[in-house]
Amino acid sequence: MKVYILTLFPEVFGPILQSSILKRAKEAGLLQVKTVNIRDFAIDKHGTVDDYPYGGGPGMVLKPEPVYEALAWVRRDSGTKPYVALMTPQGRKFATQVARDLAKRDPLVLVAGHYEGFDERIRSFSDDEISIGDFVLTGGEIAAMAVLDATSRFLPGVLGDATSAESDSFSDGLLEGPQYTRPQEFLGMEVPLVLRQGDMAAIVRWRRKESLRRTLERRKDLLRDAVLTYEQRRLLAEVLEEDRVDGKDLW
Amino acid sequence: MKVYILTLFPEVFGPILQSSILKRAKEAGLLQVKTVNIRDFAIDKHGTVDDYPYGGGPGMVLKPEPVYEALAWVRRDSGTKPYVALMTPQGRKFATQVARDLAKRDPLVLVAGHYEGFDERIRSFSDDEISIGDFVLTGGEIAAMAVLDATSRFLPGVLGDATSAESDSFSDGLLEGPQYTRPQEFLGMEVPLVLRQGDMAAIVRWRRKESLRRTLERRKDLLRDAVLTYEQRRLLAEVLEEDRVDGKDLW
Repeated sequence: MKVYILTLFPEVFGPILQSSILKRAKEAGLLQVKTVNIRDFAIDKHGTVDDYPYGGGPGMVLKPEPVYEALAWVRRDSGTKPYVALMTPQGRKFATQVARDLAKRDPLVLVAGHYEGFDERIRSFSDDEISIGDFVLTGGEIAAMAVLDATSRFLPGVLGDATSAESDSFSDGLLEGPQYTRPQEFLGMEVPLVLRQGDMAAIVRWRRKESLRRTLERRKDLLRDAVLTYEQRRLLAEVLEEDRVDGKDLW
Repeated sequence: MKVYILTLFPEVFGPILQSSILKRAKEAGLLQVKTVNIRDFAIDKHGTVDDYPYGGGPGMVLKPEPVYEALAWVRRDSGTKPYVALMTPQGRKFATQVARDLAKRDPLVLVAGHYEGFDERIRSFSDDEISIGDFVLTGGEIAAMAVLDATSRFLPGVLGDATSAESDSFSDGLLEGPQYTRPQEFLGMEVPLVLRQGDMAAIVRWRRKESLRRTLERRKDLLRDAVLTYEQRRLLAEVLEEDRVDGKDLW
């Protein structure tokens, strides 16, 4: 998969592209990332890419021409029409499902300009608008990093263990349950017995149940939308009884 | 404000701390950021910080001891008990309100370990758990960057114009409306006349109205929760009529 990132700060992507999953994906030839400096497509020799907003107000607004020209360059470089996603707090909410979807778009362009202040006409040459949450960032760079990292997890072969992305939180619409590693006891807190006894069926059951318990405690909204198996519904009933929670508003 | 970031990859924060808002905030003496390498608190001379999960399964789990020791060091370094927030997809959802809240915590610690695979007992020495959205990242580093950037916008004096953060998307619970800069016409798309005529009252009214229109189109959920002024309710009624939208499910 080929990803182009349009940005005014290509240098901030340096170390993250050299770390962890993204490095591994690139080295395995599964991912190719090109940062494109929007300033290389400035409208004048002073490198102008933004200007004051019409109608006044604080902040500068990213001009449409440099983004348009940068996208034209990407089209020439990739030899095809890419899928263009704008990073903006006004976009659709990024989530695991969106990551799965974007992993199939090739080439993909992430436009990480000023996160809020971009000229409205830039929307007309984008296919998608993505927000990583209901908060405002100075630039779209951090949002683009989040989208790139979460999306590459869904490229076939990127995760060491093929099952890993599918056992992550949200992959089945629920939060993951607790995890433990050594030492067995730390500051008086012990690893649950079931995880230490090697009965795999019991471990799988415990994990499914604790995943339901955690989602119930923290994210009832997810539980309401999740499609549960018959076994999960039985486990959830056990949790409700154990924790004395009234589950009426769940169904 | 002093922020400590506990991470296994301090180097990825280098360029982002040297860019845009964070650089400005640091130079103005309003923000101090220290990255703390969790590996400096490894349990042995091989630098061990993670281990296999009890009960089996893919991935490695961050051990409790190094995080505990790193937090003890932060307590000594800052001379006080800091507010510790764990970056995890199981945390409370990060949003503008959370950013406003965190901007008052000083010192603040962001723990950016393995985003998912950390030992459950690490939760017992954190005050807060924060998720930037319903998706999974490889590490908490990108989440910590997002929290740091969005939070510093609420430190008094950080934004050039004091009113800027309060006119951002979500600051009044709504999306921002369209913005324009020069040129007046691009590819046949014109800047709306009202923004070019200099009638400030008309511009303010247009912006309020378009902010409502955009939120109605894209994020009805926000509109339902927003507390609208009398003027905003009147403008919304105009939008509903113009766009022939039935607003019954809004109230």
